[in-house]
Amino acid sequence: MLQFDLLTTDPTSHARRGRLTLNHGVVETPIFMPVGTYGTVKGVTPRSLEDMGAQIILGNTFHLWMRPGLDVMAQFGGLHQFEKWDKPILTDSGGFQVWSLGEMRKIAEEGVKFSSPVNGDKLFLTPEISMQIQTVLNSDIVMQFDECTPYISVEPKTKGQLTTEAEARSSMELSLRWARRCQTEFDRLENPNALFGIVQGGMFEHLRQESLEQLVDMDFPGYAVGGVSVGEPKDEMLRIMTHTPHRLPAHKPRYLMGVGTPEDLVEGVAQGVDMFDCVMPTRNARNGTFFTRFGDLKIRNARHKTDERPLDETCTCYACAGNPAGPAGTDAAVPYANGGRGGFSRAYLHHLDRCGEMLGPMLASIHNLHYYLNLMREVREALDAGSFGEFRAKFKAERTRGV
Amino acid sequence: MLQFDLLTTDPTSHARRGRLTLNHGVVETPIFMPVGTYGTVKGVTPRSLEDMGAQIILGNTFHLWMRPGLDVMAQFGGLHQFEKWDKPILTDSGGFQVWSLGEMRKIAEEGVKFSSPVNGDKLFLTPEISMQIQTVLNSDIVMQFDECTPYISVEPKTKGQLTTEAEARSSMELSLRWARRCQTEFDRLENPNALFGIVQGGMFEHLRQESLEQLVDMDFPGYAVGGVSVGEPKDEMLRIMTHTPHRLPAHKPRYLMGVGTPEDLVEGVAQGVDMFDCVMPTRNARNGTFFTRFGDLKIRNARHKTDERPLDETCTCYACAGNPAGPAGTDAAVPYANGGRGGFSRAYLHHLDRCGEMLGPMLASIHNLHYYLNLMREVREALDAGSFGEFRAKFKAERTRGV
Repeated sequence: MLQFDLLTTDPTSHARRGRLTLNHGVVETPIFMPVGTYGTVKGVTPRSLEDMGAQIILGNTFHLWMRPGLDVMAQFGGLHQFEKWDKPILTDSGGFQVWSLGEMRKIAEEGVKFSSPVNGDKLFLTPEISMQIQTVLNSDIVMQFDECTPYISVEPKTKGQLTTEAEARSSMELSLRWARRCQTEFDRLENPNALFGIVQGGMFEHLRQESLEQLVDMDFPGYAVGGVSVGEPKDEMLRIMTHTPHRLPAHKPRYLMGVGTPEDLVEGVAQGVDMFDCVMPTRNARNGTFFTRFGDLKIRNARHKTDERPLDETCTCYACAGNPAGPAGTDAAVPYANGGRGGFSRAYLHHLDRCGEMLGPMLASIHNLHYYLNLMREVREALDAGSFGEFRAKFKAERTRGV
Repeated sequence: MLQFDLLTTDPTSHARRGRLTLNHGVVETPIFMPVGTYGTVKGVTPRSLEDMGAQIILGNTFHLWMRPGLDVMAQFGGLHQFEKWDKPILTDSGGFQVWSLGEMRKIAEEGVKFSSPVNGDKLFLTPEISMQIQTVLNSDIVMQFDECTPYISVEPKTKGQLTTEAEARSSMELSLRWARRCQTEFDRLENPNALFGIVQGGMFEHLRQESLEQLVDMDFPGYAVGGVSVGEPKDEMLRIMTHTPHRLPAHKPRYLMGVGTPEDLVEGVAQGVDMFDCVMPTRNARNGTFFTRFGDLKIRNARHKTDERPLDETCTCYACAGNPAGPAGTDAAVPYANGGRGGFSRAYLHHLDRCGEMLGPMLASIHNLHYYLNLMREVREALDAGSFGEFRAKFKAERTRGV
């Protein structure tokens, strides 16, 4: 089940405000989806995710297939009950992870042979098996199994070379054949959720166009743009982001996979993207990098040692505002700047990082995820108010102000 | 400032129910105090500590002196504001940590010379310096600087030998002289909080008696029993726990340092102890060992892989009951067994541990601390109800039932 309501469109860009209704609930778009690889968004509790207004999270099919394994997933009736998250979940196909194994895997028409990175077992992943696993996971959005076309080849014969047009075409066409097999298997399994097709084509606009046209003919309920954020220069990524999303059907949700920075997200929205996911907020949190309205902040820098200010005086997250949050999703905490009792200081966060204390990445994960989720809330509010153009300008100015 | 009200005493043991009023609030005793070495109770937020009903937490003077250092502590006006904990704090004296450095330190009458484990700096800690540091930390309860008499010697000449009576006497007498110096310096500094004396004397009852008599003469507002949980066999620890606490003044709080298991706590209460601290709930959490009403549980055991039950069906912590907690301290979550929507399964906790996911130790820390704090709440309720004898019997029977 998937229903997508297009609520408003921005006259100054391709940006859209939408509402996605899935089996486990409603998702207001544009949306950022926190990544919960192994059935947990790293460093945060499900309660905390709810508090910060997360509407949908990701799970990684490949990882969950390895651990805990399909037997446990089937016993729990899917990922929701296992990880105690009752809102929507999107799962990827496992294709990207298998592809990332590099020389440990072999791609053929039928599927991908590889050795388990957990125990060395010889395994085989095909479009059909990916659909079977995702059906057991019972994710609200299922992604087709695809081949992620690399930017730079990792194959023994062509290693280190830019992917050629011929290679990108061959890969894109394989993904299309796999898309058809996924659709057939998804239907055969009577999966009650929604299957998304993935546009590939490397850095070649005409291949992207061909991919999307053929996928549109197959009539998926939603579409993703894959094969970006795979090591290409930023301007190449932006070129594809500018080309593809707005050419997808207007009445269906559009998901840009694995992107990106706060700037990428706002630009992606302007290009017509509805859904984003990225490990940056949680990964950077564990490396001591904080995203804020006024730019990024590296907490390990010695200049923070005695700084009594919170990370971001306008932020209402637990790390910055300290006060208990309001009812789930409403985030009623009073920010420091508005007289809230104040959250944790930069000096304290610097200290936690220096001592290797768990609370450091815990607070950083809360803050960074809250930042991403709140950014998208502000985007939605600007779209509702018809002021997305102004929002973009203000966002850029504030982000370059410096923290 | 310290006021101790003795509310009730148990006719079947030395157990007492009391109320301790300190500069930052009221502490109902008997109480367990979570350990927050570096200005954070490992793996939990201050909000979570409040939710689970923590009334007072520890800080470690030695660690905080090293990092972030006294300059930062002074700038923040003490530990409370730095770590965002507005309820009472107790700090140790740094003596135990310096002592634990082994051959890296040298003890003399004046104090202890040692090399900083952080940067190798030559440092000197004396009773006076300990009082000065703890005054900057502004902890509600300040501990005297003492020498922790070892159970087995670590000195080069006598290494590996049991501490002799002469050695224990000499050490105990040094601690008494340091107690007087601490008292003098604490008064000179006009520290507005409360200084506790520490009974030493190794495993020798008559030395313990001598130590406590002389400390009582010095009229501290509270007393601790130190030098236990230092590697001695359990029956030796129990022997001292049976001897010393109930001989301390009835109208003053009694603190047994560094103890211990749930069984040790209940036995300690029966012997007249009011306050406990121990790293076990948080340290064991990070090693995958959970304390429950029905015994301890090692989550790494493969038998948990498919177990859908929570750790403890009667527990109301976030990990077990899942529901949002009620207002701070009330812990209104409905346990699984009473129809609560249910927390995380053993299978999920097993999976998190296996994948090395942060959420594993986070949930384990919440559960274990909640278990310790709730155990002491049940102890207090039993004392209030005049049924501590029955409670002890029930506690022992349940703990040996098996999980």
